[in-house]
Amino acid sequence: MASDPARLAAIRVAVAGALERFLAGQREVLGAIGQDMLPWIDVMTGLLAGGKRLRPAFCYWGWRAAGGADCPEIYVAAAALELLHASALVHDDVMDASDTRRGLPAVHHQFSARMAAAGIDQAAAAFGAGAAILIGDAMLAWTDEMYHGSGLPARALQRGQPVLDAMRTEVVSGQYLDLVNQVTRNDTVASAMRVVTYKTAKYTIERPLHLGAALAGAPPGDLPATQSAASGRPQALSVPGTCTGYGLPLGTAYQLRDDILGVFGDPAVTGKPVTGDISEGKRTVLIALASERASVAQLRVLERHLGDRGLTEAGAAEVRAVITDTGALAECETLISASVKEAIGALDGAPITEAARQALTELAVLATARVH
Amino acid sequence: MASDPARLAAIRVAVAGALERFLAGQREVLGAIGQDMLPWIDVMTGLLAGGKRLRPAFCYWGWRAAGGADCPEIYVAAAALELLHASALVHDDVMDASDTRRGLPAVHHQFSARMAAAGIDQAAAAFGAGAAILIGDAMLAWTDEMYHGSGLPARALQRGQPVLDAMRTEVVSGQYLDLVNQVTRNDTVASAMRVVTYKTAKYTIERPLHLGAALAGAPPGDLPATQSAASGRPQALSVPGTCTGYGLPLGTAYQLRDDILGVFGDPAVTGKPVTGDISEGKRTVLIALASERASVAQLRVLERHLGDRGLTEAGAAEVRAVITDTGALAECETLISASVKEAIGALDGAPITEAARQALTELAVLATARVH
Repeated sequence: MASDPARLAAIRVAVAGALERFLAGQREVLGAIGQDMLPWIDVMTGLLAGGKRLRPAFCYWGWRAAGGADCPEIYVAAAALELLHASALVHDDVMDASDTRRGLPAVHHQFSARMAAAGIDQAAAAFGAGAAILIGDAMLAWTDEMYHGSGLPARALQRGQPVLDAMRTEVVSGQYLDLVNQVTRNDTVASAMRVVTYKTAKYTIERPLHLGAALAGAPPGDLPATQSAASGRPQALSVPGTCTGYGLPLGTAYQLRDDILGVFGDPAVTGKPVTGDISEGKRTVLIALASERASVAQLRVLERHLGDRGLTEAGAAEVRAVITDTGALAECETLISASVKEAIGALDGAPITEAARQALTELAVLATARVH
Repeated sequence: MASDPARLAAIRVAVAGALERFLAGQREVLGAIGQDMLPWIDVMTGLLAGGKRLRPAFCYWGWRAAGGADCPEIYVAAAALELLHASALVHDDVMDASDTRRGLPAVHHQFSARMAAAGIDQAAAAFGAGAAILIGDAMLAWTDEMYHGSGLPARALQRGQPVLDAMRTEVVSGQYLDLVNQVTRNDTVASAMRVVTYKTAKYTIERPLHLGAALAGAPPGDLPATQSAASGRPQALSVPGTCTGYGLPLGTAYQLRDDILGVFGDPAVTGKPVTGDISEGKRTVLIALASERASVAQLRVLERHLGDRGLTEAGAAEVRAVITDTGALAECETLISASVKEAIGALDGAPITEAARQALTELAVLATARVH
């Protein structure tokens, strides 16, 4: 058994290969409609080349945890989650009017530029947004197509279907609640945590694990349909219960790390503009913790800069100082450590394979490391 | 056997019931995430209450054509197409910045208004667009969930999957090519016809028929994956071949009728603003025919008004006059008649049930009538 960093690399290679083959097939399909459809494949290829492949990795280890054997089909089913995620990113970038993604111009900008380059400025921005919405729709539909075309037996796919369904509903719900928090300037820790539960913890870790476990035959009755991080310990004695006990706290830790990197991270490493999270006015748990602890003067600093599209580096530095001075940063780090510990603890004595226990322990550390 | 108008009414009732039960289930799922998710169900209920249910009707008759027996499950699978279509409409309205849909404010406006009513004007429009994108995503994902939860046997669903896949890819492709035509002001009849083939003819009629036929067990080998209206007669001796031979010309006729109604229709009947198609600059076949036949002066009229968001009724009247005077309107009517005749002719001697032949003949007339 290779240690996890090597194993994760192997998963990444297999997932990349599966995506490449799937897109090659779709290139044929789109090309038959018209050569002018092919830019879609180029744009998707660029987008899908990036990413940490965390969701497929957790899906794979959910499968292995429940006793599934290593086989080509599980990588294809797991890779379908990358299409789902890419769809969410493209639509997210339209909604947030983001400029870049994974080191490339956001998809809507790529299509606007295509028209602008053809000498058509007028309406190029609307065209870019429209194209991005449609490409996101295509990748969302293709999630399903790739999943059902993975070659796994029909019965396995049927077992996984409710998990895939739950996952998709939860992620759009989490994104919507996030939007609501942003527009209503809701800065309570509880509402930020609810967004984390649905938009990240379930979507990135718990559900991919559940999906893999269900595909491998873990009894679906154990799958808590609407278990949230706040509702206490799930049943740790089943595979899905273990996935929840591990996935929800780890997912929270993963998002908190992302919150910190979004404000304090090195843009060269994160691939995001350093002022992005602040200027977009994201109501993260980190920001909520700072708001709760802020003095009147500190609160005024936050209110002035959060959501300011013209944010300067000086303004960002002021926000960072508030986050540090209120103790919010330190508390976030404490929460991350405690959550990772809780996640790893959930693996103790759990009814999963030894290989999965080892891999999931290492993945917990990798997913929440200070730089990744 | 009831005559088709009555049968279509029965299909509509069954489809509405299936959607109502599905949304009741999703209300539970969303309510468990938070009560603040429930406006989604209200908005979807309003949206899904409208519509002619043509896609489910064609899916149902594809099933019956291939020998499927009337049963509750087929209505559920067919109703899933309404979710797909509602998703496309919501996203379309965001892309086109449309104000109304099916007599209600467009979904993005409904959500903008919700925030504006709560006293939050700033960013309300962006919030509305974001919410609409996410609701469209949810309905696109739920298409799949409803289809797979229809209760039809797993083998039947597997047979239908490639058709559902093709249908989703084709409709987003058609929408994209439509956007490209709009932004590049491409006004050739050929490019407008290609959009009609993918965005309407396949999506609204051919593929729903194919889906029903595949679910009922029609051999998938006969299914022409990328058959287009232009590529000649399909094999009329198989059920899928018949669906194509009937569906593509009928779908073209259906769209041409819609083109005419979009410019000449009574807003009280169509539910669309009378200047909508012109001010959105839609590059329809009707417009393409007019452009091809226009004099220099007439072309200048079209160029001045197409895509003019501030279009007046006087401007619209000028465009209507050009469409009539060039003979484009009359040619469109001729094309509709010929296409309907071709569609009905494809049913002659086709290997489908007598009930389906009768229903499809009547549906062809209903779908392309002057007012509907």
